[in-house]
Amino acid sequence: MHSPDTIASALSETRLWQRLMSMAEIGAIDGGGVNRQALTDGDAAAQQLLVRWAEARNFACSRDGIGNLFIRRHGTEPELAPVMTGSHLDTQPTGGKFDGAYGVMAGFEFLEALEDTQTQTRRPIDLVAWMNEEGCRFQPGAMGSGVYGGSFERERMLERYDRGGVLVRDALDVLTQLAPLPAMPVSPPPACYVEAHIEQGPLLEEARMPVGIVTGIQGIRRIAVEILGREAHAGTTPRRMRQDALSVAAEAIYELERRAADPEDMLRFTVGSLNVLPNSTNTVPSRVDFLIDLRHPSEKIIQNFSHTIETVIAHVAKEKRCSAMVNTVSHVAPTVFDSDLVKDLQRFAGRLGYAHMPIASGAGHDSMHVAKRCPTAMVFVPCRDGVSHHPSESAEPADLIAGARLAAAVLLERAQA
Amino acid sequence: MHSPDTIASALSETRLWQRLMSMAEIGAIDGGGVNRQALTDGDAAAQQLLVRWAEARNFACSRDGIGNLFIRRHGTEPELAPVMTGSHLDTQPTGGKFDGAYGVMAGFEFLEALEDTQTQTRRPIDLVAWMNEEGCRFQPGAMGSGVYGGSFERERMLERYDRGGVLVRDALDVLTQLAPLPAMPVSPPPACYVEAHIEQGPLLEEARMPVGIVTGIQGIRRIAVEILGREAHAGTTPRRMRQDALSVAAEAIYELERRAADPEDMLRFTVGSLNVLPNSTNTVPSRVDFLIDLRHPSEKIIQNFSHTIETVIAHVAKEKRCSAMVNTVSHVAPTVFDSDLVKDLQRFAGRLGYAHMPIASGAGHDSMHVAKRCPTAMVFVPCRDGVSHHPSESAEPADLIAGARLAAAVLLERAQA
Repeated sequence: MHSPDTIASALSETRLWQRLMSMAEIGAIDGGGVNRQALTDGDAAAQQLLVRWAEARNFACSRDGIGNLFIRRHGTEPELAPVMTGSHLDTQPTGGKFDGAYGVMAGFEFLEALEDTQTQTRRPIDLVAWMNEEGCRFQPGAMGSGVYGGSFERERMLERYDRGGVLVRDALDVLTQLAPLPAMPVSPPPACYVEAHIEQGPLLEEARMPVGIVTGIQGIRRIAVEILGREAHAGTTPRRMRQDALSVAAEAIYELERRAADPEDMLRFTVGSLNVLPNSTNTVPSRVDFLIDLRHPSEKIIQNFSHTIETVIAHVAKEKRCSAMVNTVSHVAPTVFDSDLVKDLQRFAGRLGYAHMPIASGAGHDSMHVAKRCPTAMVFVPCRDGVSHHPSESAEPADLIAGARLAAAVLLERAQA
Repeated sequence: MHSPDTIASALSETRLWQRLMSMAEIGAIDGGGVNRQALTDGDAAAQQLLVRWAEARNFACSRDGIGNLFIRRHGTEPELAPVMTGSHLDTQPTGGKFDGAYGVMAGFEFLEALEDTQTQTRRPIDLVAWMNEEGCRFQPGAMGSGVYGGSFERERMLERYDRGGVLVRDALDVLTQLAPLPAMPVSPPPACYVEAHIEQGPLLEEARMPVGIVTGIQGIRRIAVEILGREAHAGTTPRRMRQDALSVAAEAIYELERRAADPEDMLRFTVGSLNVLPNSTNTVPSRVDFLIDLRHPSEKIIQNFSHTIETVIAHVAKEKRCSAMVNTVSHVAPTVFDSDLVKDLQRFAGRLGYAHMPIASGAGHDSMHVAKRCPTAMVFVPCRDGVSHHPSESAEPADLIAGARLAAAVLLERAQA
């Protein structure tokens, strides 16, 4: 029986790259990007290509009731829980070649390496392409994995519709007709799930690390702030009589950024959207609305800083004779990945000779839902300039294969356990 | 011969109020406001009403080549330079009853009081209704007084057009046909000009003063600021790698407001307009544009603070890895009113028993152009909540007559000199 290290080295950098490039032709757009939104013809064509490759290897293909695509390489003990890997094939409208597709192609490369080396595993190995991770055509994102993980109800997701009024249910019927597959067989919950993905951030590139071992996914809180002051003439109204909503917003944002400056640089405090009313040069602003995007791997820190946000804004508004409303508009708790799986990834990264570092994911992933069903972790590889969701999204073949090999080694060890 | 004090008391509070209410019927809009933009039918009707009142008193009416309306009460020595008062009859599209109309009606009440008391003056007294002070239909504002004062060339102003493509030249022809008047006779520059106006700010109301003696008009500088950073993912980009344009704008505005806080509360620093790009909740802003409106009666202080603005913005931008462009887009130097005329106004305010205070005008007025031709000053009266350019614009009859009497007393003394 081949060791995980041997199998890892059997994964082909060239073949992985070629498969990624072939997949990127489906829905290709100008600038090297991909537009392959969930449940479109492009999405169906991508699934058909993958199924064609899988059938050439005699893997078993199936689909579940929300459109997740499963490709199984059988184990010698079919009744055991499978080990699972995968990601998603859908993209943003102006997406790139790697976000999602990489995790699916990395998993497929693992299955091919097992075939090439004629390696038998005790457990089945499932490769999944989750339906609608991006959430740009149908909201919410991570829809397929969310139903799989029990976060969302399938029936409610089937009733979601896109801007053209098309239901998920009907779009799924079209996909089923375009790319028919048997229903997914009943299976016990997986023994584990490991997903490879590009980082979508700049940290690995900055640190010159080929792989990052993801310890969890940040929690995200969105907080809407509304500052109410009073319109006044910019020329005739002295400072002491102003109720300047923008002055409050500027001081509050300045003060909150100062307080958000943790030494470890982990708290993400962003004001990305801000609107001023009446937005006229010679009028003291009567109203400013802005949205705070707050992220951290620790729920406690998100809660504490949310309290700081309320306190600081109330204080600054009062000092400047304005009123303020602060409302949490959405909240997703952090995901903490399985510590044993994280340790396994660290151990194998060392054995395979990859420089690596722990990293928290700043973006959401299918794995946050899968983590509710089985021990889960992720491997990140660098992407150029930290860019994703853009045609210029790019990654190095050497890094891509490193991430695929690391995931494969851990999955193989678990598949033999 | 009647003393200035006696004549002042002959001005009628009731008649002044009634004339203001009659004038406000022309172009009346919902909420008690007035829409009587320059060179419209409403503007012509307002001029015709005033001319009718003037002709009933046998005053001489004329118009100059840019549409300024002159009403002269002859003096006993016609070759002497006249004393002059007035303001404007045009309004904003959603203006009030008092801005402009008050100064014209106050001057007319002065002329009527002279008639009622059969008072002869040595110098002629000219009442002027300046053409297009508001500048909302045709740019720039204070067009008629600007030509009179030599700030603007008449020929260039005649070629300005409104949004409908109508030239000032043609609109003026229509006015001349609707309300024909002889051409203004040649006259030496006035001996002085005193204009009464509502404050358009909250200071007199706050101080409970019926009159303010205007020492000058603030200079105004408009400064456009453009901060350039770099778009980045709000979840994955750590603080140390961000180039957050809004973070720069917030800190710069906070710091500049802190430095603008002069003990006398005279410097007006306002950011009324600010726009964020791409203005997306989960994206670090790549660009922020904002406009600074900076006003002070001292040119030197405006210049010094403009330098502070450049320095602070450059410093904050550099600290946060962004670039900044700071450009002055317009600049109007302060007007300092004639100190003898200001002293006369203070002296008569005391003699007439009016509580008064010096005040700098935060808004522009016709008097800033007239000041280039003769000694000029202004009298302000309070307006409710400091509001102007709005249907809710309001002032008290007792304050309106106080301002009219103060201006009349000073003008009469000068008319006899």
